[in-house]
Amino acid sequence: MNTFTYDIPTRVIFGPDQLSRLGEELGNFGNKVLLVYGGGSIKKTGLYDRILEALHSGGIEVTELSGVEPNPRIATVREGIRRGREAGVNAVLAVGGGSSLDCGKFIAAAMNYPGDPWELIAGRIAVDNCLPIVTITTMAATGSEMDPWVVISDPEKKAKQGYTTYGMYPTVSFLDPTLTYSVGKYQTACGCADIFSHACETYFSPSGMEMTDRLLEGVMNTVVRFAPVALREPDNYEARANILWSASWAINGMVRNTQRCNWSCHPLEHQLSAWYDITHGLGLAIVTPRWMEAILSPETAPRLHRLGTAVFGVDADLEPLEGAKATIAALKHWLFDELGLASTLHEIGIGDEHFADMARGAVANGLPRGYVPMDEAAAVALYQACL
Amino acid sequence: MNTFTYDIPTRVIFGPDQLSRLGEELGNFGNKVLLVYGGGSIKKTGLYDRILEALHSGGIEVTELSGVEPNPRIATVREGIRRGREAGVNAVLAVGGGSSLDCGKFIAAAMNYPGDPWELIAGRIAVDNCLPIVTITTMAATGSEMDPWVVISDPEKKAKQGYTTYGMYPTVSFLDPTLTYSVGKYQTACGCADIFSHACETYFSPSGMEMTDRLLEGVMNTVVRFAPVALREPDNYEARANILWSASWAINGMVRNTQRCNWSCHPLEHQLSAWYDITHGLGLAIVTPRWMEAILSPETAPRLHRLGTAVFGVDADLEPLEGAKATIAALKHWLFDELGLASTLHEIGIGDEHFADMARGAVANGLPRGYVPMDEAAAVALYQACL
Repeated sequence: MNTFTYDIPTRVIFGPDQLSRLGEELGNFGNKVLLVYGGGSIKKTGLYDRILEALHSGGIEVTELSGVEPNPRIATVREGIRRGREAGVNAVLAVGGGSSLDCGKFIAAAMNYPGDPWELIAGRIAVDNCLPIVTITTMAATGSEMDPWVVISDPEKKAKQGYTTYGMYPTVSFLDPTLTYSVGKYQTACGCADIFSHACETYFSPSGMEMTDRLLEGVMNTVVRFAPVALREPDNYEARANILWSASWAINGMVRNTQRCNWSCHPLEHQLSAWYDITHGLGLAIVTPRWMEAILSPETAPRLHRLGTAVFGVDADLEPLEGAKATIAALKHWLFDELGLASTLHEIGIGDEHFADMARGAVANGLPRGYVPMDEAAAVALYQACL
Repeated sequence: MNTFTYDIPTRVIFGPDQLSRLGEELGNFGNKVLLVYGGGSIKKTGLYDRILEALHSGGIEVTELSGVEPNPRIATVREGIRRGREAGVNAVLAVGGGSSLDCGKFIAAAMNYPGDPWELIAGRIAVDNCLPIVTITTMAATGSEMDPWVVISDPEKKAKQGYTTYGMYPTVSFLDPTLTYSVGKYQTACGCADIFSHACETYFSPSGMEMTDRLLEGVMNTVVRFAPVALREPDNYEARANILWSASWAINGMVRNTQRCNWSCHPLEHQLSAWYDITHGLGLAIVTPRWMEAILSPETAPRLHRLGTAVFGVDADLEPLEGAKATIAALKHWLFDELGLASTLHEIGIGDEHFADMARGAVANGLPRGYVPMDEAAAVALYQACL
């Protein structure tokens, strides 16, 4: 078992109708904020107006960066830094799903860094002068609201890379399940596949802590159970609240700090969305069951079987290999039948033309240090199984 | 479902051989610390010497308060405040089990309060100028290392009362499972009964969050499974680490913030240990299964049955009432047979002479707001069932 440090400084304000506290929270850092958001859906839902009202009544001056794309790009980060410096902002308020949050967090980290922000990513350079970050999450998925990680893309380099530094833990995150009511079926499904994957990847980086295993099983079971409810009834508070809170816990330091090995499906998927700009959760849905099939062996079967028992109600009395196969079948049924996600790369127009490059990228991003180590040949075979 | 704020600022350094970081951590607050500990077992184990060495090499001046009793007393708190003020300490380092930690935390809270410290408890007065608190936990039980609560006794008043203020979250807590190797069988058993009770009480204050339920089941299952291992093999790292980390999560804000109702067994037990100075975990072991019997009904049976299924392997196919009874039987078997704790008040020399007063105290401390509301008559009946 590892020595670890547990340290999650983010304060979470969970529940509806809490945005009136926004001015007070941001006022702790100064009176100028950079507001970072995506494609404008927050204007349609009225959230934008509520935020501006809360900021203005709190005496906060707002500089805006809108139009953050899914898989946020380094060029957008550079523009945010430019605007933030010009206005002399004291904090970043990131509003939206994981992309807007990641973009805002990374802007906050790089604001006081004198070089180009991509240098931080390329050199894995920690910074100790991040601006304070406040987030308002409108989608349950990445857990970015409670972790110190971002994923940033550089389409010119075909690069999509993670970056972390302690200061990117948001200071305060507002989690209001009602703000996720307007997330459509497809994005809800992708988000739940993403949450499942975070917990699943961590589950296959065993900590040796029974409690952590149970928490992860709880996260997976929550999305397995409540995702179909949220698809049927988008404004079911219980379902949205359970999914939203699970998203944060699937990936925050609570479980990651006790990990023994690297994730596998994320390095494999990051190549897919870097080359084809697909939704991360969709890529994970296609990759994850094929990864389970690829690693299935007498050694891995008991843990796969336990997952199925705890999460999908797979019969505990099966032989481990049979139980593991039943787990994979149940996962596919959930992802492809219940959530209705595309089940193959073909269906989303992806062929095998870049598999060799993608396998190289996945290996460079940690695949050989996974639960079952994989090399480039294994990665190519896995991508082929996804076709 | 409740609106809640999640906010656990404590940083946990988990694992063996981390005490060399003590000087650096305390040095952040100044160079004078009040070292609070109990009956001197830390001198026998050599921990005291290791702590002083780390503090001295970090340039930290030490003022000591030793002899903190189980169920720490207000008189000891007053003495700690006196010494701390005289030396002008900048922080409190509390070392030991829950009693030493509670005492140290409350000294830190009251150090800058001009009145008598009991006023804070009696008036539930929050303070915003606590001294920073660092803890080194030597026993898995109360979770005091990661929560903002203390329980302080005033034997003259026959009072034992809880108190909380945000600043009593320790800034840093060192959790080293090897420091718990020397905890004897009886204290290990009492500690595990205490951990179980914290998770169990919270489980019967349902949050509506599936993930939280699973985490609590994980905590309970962890102690049920690993306590007998730790009793047989006191230096089994896996068992001690699992128990220690579960202790913190059984009672920190993660689960408590989402609670709907008050605890029941703790108010009942606090009266026992206030009147008879028994070990808190022992009192909880005697009270908890009788509380379950007292609240058993068709309404409560499903949740009791679920607990048994998840924690004790009770057959999920039983009828709820039968399942609930099997759960209670399994809990008794674990507490009284596997852990070897006394199962009745008679066995520990307690009779019925103060039941009416104790029932009044338990009701004053929240019993009517419990999962199943109880009045004084119900409390007396419950104490009688414990005889």
